[in-house]
Amino acid sequence: MSYDFYMPVRVLGGESVVKTQAQRLREFGECCLIVTGGSGAKNSGALQDTQDALHSVGVAFEVFDRIEQNPQTETCRQAGEVARRCGADFLIGIGGGSALDATKAVAVFAANPELSADDIYKMQLSASPLPTVGIGTTAGTGSEVSGVSVLTDTKGVKHSIKGEQVYFKLVLADWRYTASCPYSVTVSTALDAFMHAAEGWLGPKCGEAPTAFAVMCLPILWKELKRMYKTQELPDSEQRKRLYHASLNAGFTLNQCGTLFPHQTGYILTEHYGVPHGRA
Amino acid sequence: MSYDFYMPVRVLGGESVVKTQAQRLREFGECCLIVTGGSGAKNSGALQDTQDALHSVGVAFEVFDRIEQNPQTETCRQAGEVARRCGADFLIGIGGGSALDATKAVAVFAANPELSADDIYKMQLSASPLPTVGIGTTAGTGSEVSGVSVLTDTKGVKHSIKGEQVYFKLVLADWRYTASCPYSVTVSTALDAFMHAAEGWLGPKCGEAPTAFAVMCLPILWKELKRMYKTQELPDSEQRKRLYHASLNAGFTLNQCGTLFPHQTGYILTEHYGVPHGRA
Repeated sequence: MSYDFYMPVRVLGGESVVKTQAQRLREFGECCLIVTGGSGAKNSGALQDTQDALHSVGVAFEVFDRIEQNPQTETCRQAGEVARRCGADFLIGIGGGSALDATKAVAVFAANPELSADDIYKMQLSASPLPTVGIGTTAGTGSEVSGVSVLTDTKGVKHSIKGEQVYFKLVLADWRYTASCPYSVTVSTALDAFMHAAEGWLGPKCGEAPTAFAVMCLPILWKELKRMYKTQELPDSEQRKRLYHASLNAGFTLNQCGTLFPHQTGYILTEHYGVPHGRA
Repeated sequence: MSYDFYMPVRVLGGESVVKTQAQRLREFGECCLIVTGGSGAKNSGALQDTQDALHSVGVAFEVFDRIEQNPQTETCRQAGEVARRCGADFLIGIGGGSALDATKAVAVFAANPELSADDIYKMQLSASPLPTVGIGTTAGTGSEVSGVSVLTDTKGVKHSIKGEQVYFKLVLADWRYTASCPYSVTVSTALDAFMHAAEGWLGPKCGEAPTAFAVMCLPILWKELKRMYKTQELPDSEQRKRLYHASLNAGFTLNQCGTLFPHQTGYILTEHYGVPHGRA
């Protein structure tokens, strides 16, 4: 088995971590743009906590809350404009995979005003992207710990950007933000995480470290999924916590090993039939 | 269990990895200083492979091979002077824990000429350390993947420097370089690795990710140690490979969780009685 490990994201997890680690946000600068899709960030309490944390350490901010499901390059470009206009030193993305993936792209557009919407796929940049902080509100996507951002181009087709410059610098992982997810989203995101770990683990590029993460999270995800199917009930707080951490560990595996054909097939279902990513 | 993960080192492992990844060295600049203790780097073949790799991608280099066991701040300061004199853009450390720890300190001295030998412990730096690449030749220290460097001060006492600036940027991990280690070194370094994983795992700060690494490497280290004691024989190549990868995984755990009192006690045995670190 080969050895290949790279995970530059600092992940800090725990209850109230946004509040207790507020000082770390200050280290990124004096002004930030919060990038979000709206409802998830608000309903989960994450948006309010983040605003409070920024206030407490004297960081000015604006909110861009127009990121859609399957974020579009043009929306990200517009958010980049807003970031430049308000003089943001860094970005905080709050939400599920869409908002987090979009934040990575907004960071590119903010620092590279000459890029047109679909130019981003070339990743020929004149300046480094702004630093980004991620705060997840769903337990599944793994976008928190991946160097990938999947974006829908101006023709409606999904492609991804990836690379060292795309990683979050810091992720604050408070499982409580996933507690407002309804049953359908909880199941579909957990399925997504399960597939990330399983596809990564079975893939040809899976070395020792990603195997360790897969072996740790697969039984947890399987057990929680089985329980949810059987009882049709939402997870309690312990189960939510387990699910969220497992989704991060699945993300580690995915990021190192890549997905296999089930994920590629899923993109087609999402693009053409509007099936949510996790379920597809 | 808490969630806290940070491991910014890119670790690439495999046979001939120094050769196959030579181009990555070029990305750090046009000139480098190789920092080593001499015998381990030479006997293992790592020094020759590195020189060949640097030649192949047109990177100029000098070699500083005077790092002693339990490296001294004054030696590291002198190596920093050499790095400046030869205009090194980056450093490559080759060896066991002593050479690797020293390289981290040389990187600090190289960029901060005003520091006297023991000033380094304050880590009040006017410039960022030079980037560093690590190539290990013993399976045990875990220095490859830690943000810590243990140095002996000008009075003969061990203290450490630590922090984000101390990590290697890249580690090239070819288990074959550990194959020239004699029996005593192989056992004592494997013991060190076992204690890293065990102390880290049992420690109060051990979260999910370091647990995954500990659970993966502890049985391997235990099994290999037992076999070595029983047969009094050196490991074969498969066993060497397992030992080296396990020592890296133990390093991940150690780095996240810290050591407990056995390691502190060991420092005293090393300082006052010259017992090698792994055995102490």
